[in-house]
Amino acid sequence: MGRARTAVQALTVVLATNLLAAHALDDLVSSPWGWQCEFGRCVKKEIAHQEGLSTLNTCKLTCGSSGALWPIPSQVKIEDQLSLFLPNNIDFQFNCPNEVVNLMNEAGDIFKDNILRYHPEYSDGHVPWTGPWDASTESHILYVNGLVTGDAVSLNLNTDESYQLNVTTSDDFTTATIVAASFFGARHALETLSQLIEYHETSDALMVVAAQIEDSPVFPYRGILLDTSRNFVSVATLERTLDAMGASKLNTLHWHITDTHSFPLVLESLPNMAAYGAYSSRQVYTFKQVVDLKEYARVRGVRLLPELDAPAHVGNGWQWGHEAGLGDLAVCVNQEPWQEYCVEPPCGQLNLANPSMYHVLGQLYVELVKLFSPLDMFHFGGDEVNMHCWNASKEISDWMIENDFGVDEEAYFKQWAVFQQRARELFLEATGEEEIQGVLFTSGLTAAENLENYVNSSQYIIQIWTAKDDPVIKDVLTRGYKVIFSNYDAWYLDCGMGAWVGEGNNWCSPYKGWQTVYDNSPYDIAYSLTGSQHTDLILGGEATLWTEQADDATIDSKLWPRSAALAERLWSNPASGWYAAETPFVNHRQRLVKRGIQAERLQPEWCHQNEGLCYL
Amino acid sequence: MGRARTAVQALTVVLATNLLAAHALDDLVSSPWGWQCEFGRCVKKEIAHQEGLSTLNTCKLTCGSSGALWPIPSQVKIEDQLSLFLPNNIDFQFNCPNEVVNLMNEAGDIFKDNILRYHPEYSDGHVPWTGPWDASTESHILYVNGLVTGDAVSLNLNTDESYQLNVTTSDDFTTATIVAASFFGARHALETLSQLIEYHETSDALMVVAAQIEDSPVFPYRGILLDTSRNFVSVATLERTLDAMGASKLNTLHWHITDTHSFPLVLESLPNMAAYGAYSSRQVYTFKQVVDLKEYARVRGVRLLPELDAPAHVGNGWQWGHEAGLGDLAVCVNQEPWQEYCVEPPCGQLNLANPSMYHVLGQLYVELVKLFSPLDMFHFGGDEVNMHCWNASKEISDWMIENDFGVDEEAYFKQWAVFQQRARELFLEATGEEEIQGVLFTSGLTAAENLENYVNSSQYIIQIWTAKDDPVIKDVLTRGYKVIFSNYDAWYLDCGMGAWVGEGNNWCSPYKGWQTVYDNSPYDIAYSLTGSQHTDLILGGEATLWTEQADDATIDSKLWPRSAALAERLWSNPASGWYAAETPFVNHRQRLVKRGIQAERLQPEWCHQNEGLCYL
Repeated sequence: MGRARTAVQALTVVLATNLLAAHALDDLVSSPWGWQCEFGRCVKKEIAHQEGLSTLNTCKLTCGSSGALWPIPSQVKIEDQLSLFLPNNIDFQFNCPNEVVNLMNEAGDIFKDNILRYHPEYSDGHVPWTGPWDASTESHILYVNGLVTGDAVSLNLNTDESYQLNVTTSDDFTTATIVAASFFGARHALETLSQLIEYHETSDALMVVAAQIEDSPVFPYRGILLDTSRNFVSVATLERTLDAMGASKLNTLHWHITDTHSFPLVLESLPNMAAYGAYSSRQVYTFKQVVDLKEYARVRGVRLLPELDAPAHVGNGWQWGHEAGLGDLAVCVNQEPWQEYCVEPPCGQLNLANPSMYHVLGQLYVELVKLFSPLDMFHFGGDEVNMHCWNASKEISDWMIENDFGVDEEAYFKQWAVFQQRARELFLEATGEEEIQGVLFTSGLTAAENLENYVNSSQYIIQIWTAKDDPVIKDVLTRGYKVIFSNYDAWYLDCGMGAWVGEGNNWCSPYKGWQTVYDNSPYDIAYSLTGSQHTDLILGGEATLWTEQADDATIDSKLWPRSAALAERLWSNPASGWYAAETPFVNHRQRLVKRGIQAERLQPEWCHQNEGLCYL
Repeated sequence: MGRARTAVQALTVVLATNLLAAHALDDLVSSPWGWQCEFGRCVKKEIAHQEGLSTLNTCKLTCGSSGALWPIPSQVKIEDQLSLFLPNNIDFQFNCPNEVVNLMNEAGDIFKDNILRYHPEYSDGHVPWTGPWDASTESHILYVNGLVTGDAVSLNLNTDESYQLNVTTSDDFTTATIVAASFFGARHALETLSQLIEYHETSDALMVVAAQIEDSPVFPYRGILLDTSRNFVSVATLERTLDAMGASKLNTLHWHITDTHSFPLVLESLPNMAAYGAYSSRQVYTFKQVVDLKEYARVRGVRLLPELDAPAHVGNGWQWGHEAGLGDLAVCVNQEPWQEYCVEPPCGQLNLANPSMYHVLGQLYVELVKLFSPLDMFHFGGDEVNMHCWNASKEISDWMIENDFGVDEEAYFKQWAVFQQRARELFLEATGEEEIQGVLFTSGLTAAENLENYVNSSQYIIQIWTAKDDPVIKDVLTRGYKVIFSNYDAWYLDCGMGAWVGEGNNWCSPYKGWQTVYDNSPYDIAYSLTGSQHTDLILGGEATLWTEQADDATIDSKLWPRSAALAERLWSNPASGWYAAETPFVNHRQRLVKRGIQAERLQPEWCHQNEGLCYL
């Protein structure tokens, strides 16, 4: 399952000796530096002392076993042929079922915009190409020929995302031939092709390198969790997130839409949810915005997986029941002192004793299905139920006693399980389907003593969010549950900031560096706990951004480039660790920035220009 | 010296019950929420259950002893009078010396743009005010009358930054009267006035509150260090940094322009410095850009303090000497293994044995003086000299022996001191001044055994960057040195990320939360080590952003809002700690975002809307 990044013999791609584009410094003096690929590394050298040096971009594109590709493909060979061309000389030819023609055309437009963005003066779709170019550059055509054999238009766990990409080049034209079984594989191929292209600094043109690639993901579930309840996240930020996911071949945006803090989703049949629960009238998602976002995601190879966390992690947005004559739909909402009723302020849980709560929940599911269908999975949340909250509600404890359930912890666990069963039934009703995969976070319900009583392994996938040495991982794997990893000690991207209640640092500090993210291998974790990699049960994983301390201003830099480290782990699952991936990873960060993502800087630019020299 | 934030009796400013501006959600249902100031806190309540609630912005502007002001002024009284007005109804009248008329006009323009930015739909100077307004709002005028008595046009350690601001209001107009001894005090008053203004959500107008304020800073040096060598920082990012500094009344941008990594400054007489040293021809500062930036800073109350770190922390940019017939200007440049020659890759130090080095250094100072004058201070850097680097250079060790200096550590310290003496003389020559304050980082040279031999307390200010319990603090204070604090355990804003050499977290982890930044009191540190606050010697401090792991994408979020926590510590030096400041600080972060700064989010929006409830 592993793919290794190893140094290969240097390619020699010599293009220029004058390395400066027109700019302030040029008026004074030319840069004395160039680059040469030596043993898979770009080495900065002085032009005066070495002939035939290339530009930095040229070197990065062609040096090493996989050039600038991220994530590393299953099989890749980058050739010693490089051509210059201009962006208006791209010709697409797609051979595909009618169902996917529009998707391919949109993916082609995205591809075009992505390569325009390589120009250092890109601005909002426009770049000032100035030349002058030689005749061969001006006339060189890039033909992109795509053959898609399947007609799937939505992505699920069984989607064939594999592709082949063959780029050959001659004096007059370059041909990129894509073969894929689905649109989703084909758009991955276009993404890979865009990474075989770069801006050539001295000729103000694009360059493309010849290559042969066969590629498919190791894990079918490669995701990001984004929380839009602790802080509101604008549609523009969600779109940037999807742009970067597409650039990294991640395929699932797990949208933790709601929580106790706020309810930003405007639902036609339940307007009070957002009226009471949105932070303001400007901090909401409308029906049209969500549906558009679903499409925005799809053409980038991503499906939206909605979560409605319950029965805990609900609160604001649910306060209108009493005034509507439905009683209290939730209890402990914003209750103080919060420490007694929940894990963080504000508190809130659904009111088990109120049948109207189920009525509203069922209607909510109907709305969610309308928004997000087709859905092959749904995330029920299901984490961090506080039994004291329920028991402190007189309505609930009276109801527990009246129904002879008792009020001990075991009794509440049982009712939680009843809730989950009912929630699943309501969701299935909403979809009209016989079966759908639910996802649940690990919790008291998934603990060894409750697991088999309360959670059916054919109905639910378990998302592991505790640390990689938590015995629950063994408990669920050895009992045959499918799992998704997001263990917080590696894949929680909110960790390491200052505290937001009290002082010091937040609960899951320290910050998880990209090296930690990269080296977190689900198969290795499973093996160390169970003696088996459990490749049949591990669907993949996701990077998790809870937004207590993030909003539009910093979501990009918390998600990226670290989520791209997870992306290579899940797409390629390399046998090697972070050290072998550092140079292309830092380069991928630069690519994300060019695509408008405010990704965190990992190292000084000097390290980017002097590969391998920032070591310990 | 302390000013306390305490809760005061709530002001009652009742303005509206319909809290929703026109937006998607409005079509469905109105928000049920409003706010009421109770014991200095804005409390969210349901309109159906409580009459006379106000909007969130209204409540924030007027609730508590100092409303939304940051940093807290010396004396402040916010009145129970609030007026609505439109931005075109502002009338400036400045009474000031001719020298400062242009500065005041520019500060007025900045003020106007800042209050336009309160509109949630502000975009690039424009906002779609829509109304309808009632007649009193449409006709209400804000008169801003400024009296500036002094003619100072540049800021230094003796500048009087104090101001008085009196805002009174009647049915027809509001008068804001500013009295200040300098332009710098007057622009602070305009900043404070802008914080007495907010957008009123339900009437789509601005609101201003009556107040009386007297204000002056506790510390004369309130800065930010920004490093533009590890990674290049665009002029746009430097400008945003200056915008946010003005918003927080910080007055010094300590510009760590160069280091071993790169030399981004284009100098007319020394073009090779940037040619060899810039990361690329696009990653440079031209003469015009720097001069414009100096002016951009000045109108925002900030002076640029340039640093040319030497004799260590030089390298890239200095490699051209040999080819120019000047010999090696620097040694150990990019030398490997770096661990033997410097603290982080890449290495480099000036070549003590080469007289041409001093020639170039002198010329560099001439260029810096041209760019940055008038200068009352200059930062010589002077940290982290590696004696092994010098001794490993045959040229230097031969020179040491030939001149009978010896080659032991003491000998190198002596030559370092000689270098520093010579550098100071060259700098004074460049300025033509008799005297100028130099600044030096704490280093081996400032250790107790060297301090009085090598560093003259009338010539140098010492910048303390080690931890707050470092005995060097006592050493310098008890010997009468003036100091600037930037102790890394509180004021290094780069800490807490992943490592950039090796794995794990970076050297000064953990991340310094704003609470740590806020509570770091130079007087308290001095008192705990020496038994005296040394108010005569402590000039102030600065938040420090070394950019190994930051560039345009994340400089905003690393600097802000944490630098604003330092700003209140240095402007106001409150007797109270972070807890009392939390609500206005979080609000100031929101203000910075409105001004285009991508400041880090500290808490869920829920905490902002439910003041005081996110506690531990």
